[in-house]
Amino acid sequence: MEKYDLIVIGAGPGGYEAAIKASALGHSVLLIEKDRLGGTCANKGCIPTKSLLHCAKAYAAASSSQELGVEVDKAFFNLQKAMAWKEQAVESVGKGVELLLKNAGVQVLLDAAACLDAHHVQVAGRIIEADFLILATGSEPARPPIPGSDGPNVITSDEALVMELLPQSIAIIGGGVIGIELASFFSLIGVEVSVIEMLDEILPMCDRELAKLVRRGLDKVSFNLGCKVTQIDSEGVQFTDSKQKQRRVDSQLVLMSIGRRPVTKGLEALGLETARGYIAVDSHMRTRLGNVFAIGDVNGKSMLAHSASAMAEVAVSSIFGSEAMSFDPISVPWAVYSHIEAAGCGPTEDQMKSQMRKCLCASVPMRSNGRVLAELSKRAVGSAKMICDMDGTILGIHIVGPYASELIWGASVLISSRVNVKAIRSAVFSHPSVSEVILECARAIEC
Amino acid sequence: MEKYDLIVIGAGPGGYEAAIKASALGHSVLLIEKDRLGGTCANKGCIPTKSLLHCAKAYAAASSSQELGVEVDKAFFNLQKAMAWKEQAVESVGKGVELLLKNAGVQVLLDAAACLDAHHVQVAGRIIEADFLILATGSEPARPPIPGSDGPNVITSDEALVMELLPQSIAIIGGGVIGIELASFFSLIGVEVSVIEMLDEILPMCDRELAKLVRRGLDKVSFNLGCKVTQIDSEGVQFTDSKQKQRRVDSQLVLMSIGRRPVTKGLEALGLETARGYIAVDSHMRTRLGNVFAIGDVNGKSMLAHSASAMAEVAVSSIFGSEAMSFDPISVPWAVYSHIEAAGCGPTEDQMKSQMRKCLCASVPMRSNGRVLAELSKRAVGSAKMICDMDGTILGIHIVGPYASELIWGASVLISSRVNVKAIRSAVFSHPSVSEVILECARAIEC
Repeated sequence: MEKYDLIVIGAGPGGYEAAIKASALGHSVLLIEKDRLGGTCANKGCIPTKSLLHCAKAYAAASSSQELGVEVDKAFFNLQKAMAWKEQAVESVGKGVELLLKNAGVQVLLDAAACLDAHHVQVAGRIIEADFLILATGSEPARPPIPGSDGPNVITSDEALVMELLPQSIAIIGGGVIGIELASFFSLIGVEVSVIEMLDEILPMCDRELAKLVRRGLDKVSFNLGCKVTQIDSEGVQFTDSKQKQRRVDSQLVLMSIGRRPVTKGLEALGLETARGYIAVDSHMRTRLGNVFAIGDVNGKSMLAHSASAMAEVAVSSIFGSEAMSFDPISVPWAVYSHIEAAGCGPTEDQMKSQMRKCLCASVPMRSNGRVLAELSKRAVGSAKMICDMDGTILGIHIVGPYASELIWGASVLISSRVNVKAIRSAVFSHPSVSEVILECARAIEC
Repeated sequence: MEKYDLIVIGAGPGGYEAAIKASALGHSVLLIEKDRLGGTCANKGCIPTKSLLHCAKAYAAASSSQELGVEVDKAFFNLQKAMAWKEQAVESVGKGVELLLKNAGVQVLLDAAACLDAHHVQVAGRIIEADFLILATGSEPARPPIPGSDGPNVITSDEALVMELLPQSIAIIGGGVIGIELASFFSLIGVEVSVIEMLDEILPMCDRELAKLVRRGLDKVSFNLGCKVTQIDSEGVQFTDSKQKQRRVDSQLVLMSIGRRPVTKGLEALGLETARGYIAVDSHMRTRLGNVFAIGDVNGKSMLAHSASAMAEVAVSSIFGSEAMSFDPISVPWAVYSHIEAAGCGPTEDQMKSQMRKCLCASVPMRSNGRVLAELSKRAVGSAKMICDMDGTILGIHIVGPYASELIWGASVLISSRVNVKAIRSAVFSHPSVSEVILECARAIEC
């Protein structure tokens, strides 16, 4: 019987990283993927959304930059070309993953896997043995049982990213990252967008004050907060608003972005413990079965591509490494790539308050920043917020505004290394840069 | 006689920061400015160039994003509108400075100052006394005595930033930051641009390999390296090329960007020691006269806006503070905002080699980065480079590619705090972000 030290199921940013790392340590590794290399991130998530958002931002720049001196006779968004651009990006990333796997000497099988027990996997009619299993099967869009959600006018992000014709209007159910990024995309290219969100603010992981700024910045989107969808029909969405009043939004299409659910098909025979469908693991990514690990979206600990990669490192080091690592979601950064960008790392002020933890907090608006004034004028939306321990240790940095997604890396390194805010204050920041708001926050922290 | 604890001459990012800080410490401060508040940075440097570059980038996005699905009938760059946009940014920044000074209780006089001695300044017909002087008079474009450089077709950045009509072609003498940013601006909006540079590579402060990438990325600009200008005439520039051959570039306009010279008018009576025209100071910004300090461009230590602000802090703390600070240019970041961005902090590989210092070095190209693939395709120009001490202490980070100017803040904090590369390796980076190239560099450093 064919045998490997490790079988990894699922070739997303968790699975392929785990396979490459284990192989680099000299172990025989088989990576099984039922769809395309790169997983949700490369094929149905991060890469295609960022790619399409970039196209939409370029269109918006072309059609609404008269004030900057950019005059165009008529601008048209060619969806087919944008989709072709996106497909090219998806293919490049997929080929990159393929090359990395090949260079690392990882065996790859493109087929559906079924676990027979903790040591045996059936794939393409064969049974293959392994000392260890890493489950990295990911997630897929959830479709909760709302009446009408199976209608032909209802899509998820999967379908939105391969759309062939633009709707005139779209109702987006769910104001999380996926909902907001797609709201940004559609509104930038002229589609009428309504967002219906159950909670009283969008982007639940975000500082509330900052989330509000994102919402206000998406000024062409109509937001319905605190609203519970009761039914989808062929002409739109019915919901109960925050005052218990029945209301509706008419739209040609309805996009469901109310979360994702773990993919556990083929793993049933393992009899793993689950919580809300997610496979339960300890901080080393180990399941109840000592030789079976689960990483990435399927364990529900932090549903982000880079979290999956970080968990891959933890799992491989738990299996083969000398160093015992663990995964701590608190210093994992996140970013939203809507045209008003948001990013954060560490606890928010709201979280600190709800945990009754004392902290030092400062926030600085974007509108007095030199680069923001040069590029966006004083009407610019945005703010940065810093949270420190009482001794000045940096705990959290949260940013809404231009370049937020690229500014956040420094926060992540400083927070995970427990650096004091004085280190920021004594550094020199490049002028004029948006990053100076971080220095301003550090100066405003009183310690 | 009117008397202040401190008189600051020059209201650029050095002078106004010094005035505000001294005032915040409870001292009486007079700030004298002969032109507009904000100095070169706000009025003739950072802010207007970044503002105009932003306009030019938006125009380029509008007119050359067909691949992204952005189709425009005809795009036109309206220089008057772009200049109005820039002027609005300049005014906003100026008003911001005015407000900061007002809130800080700094007295401001808008007039030319002449120092009578180390304690007396003449301004607007009055003589005012002060315990301390801070000279922050800045710099202006240098105009070396090249035959023909006084012709009506010859301008400097000062004139370029208030231009009313676009030339068809422009020859730029000098491939430093100013020359390259203006080359980017003019080439993006369709002006034919030639750069003539005396050295054998552009951007002398930049890692040579990376500077080459910037040059290649500015693919519509014609570069003439290792060339010495011998004469400017009404139809262009004559120069001797690297093979000692006489050559010429025909152009409607000629822009001189071969450096800046210190402004010392009105300071003659102080009899200060100078080096190449710059006022000599020690690491605390003190001149030969114990109560007179010189900060910013006029001392020539580091001709960047944020360096001037950092020196302001050093000077004020030397005068009034309890803490002895000094200015170390090595961890000062710099950024170039051309459409191929570049930024760096700390020594380059070339500098380490020329100083015979052993180091660990790694570089990672942009083209395999997920966000770069999503936004710019695998044809993207760019790379990141990291330099560490043999024990892994991060010494330098240098980046060419998208968002470089906003990525560099983290480098500056980590370098000035002497953080080890392991801190980067153990942090989680947001995916897909260009910042991941920094993580990849850290992983490639062998220690």
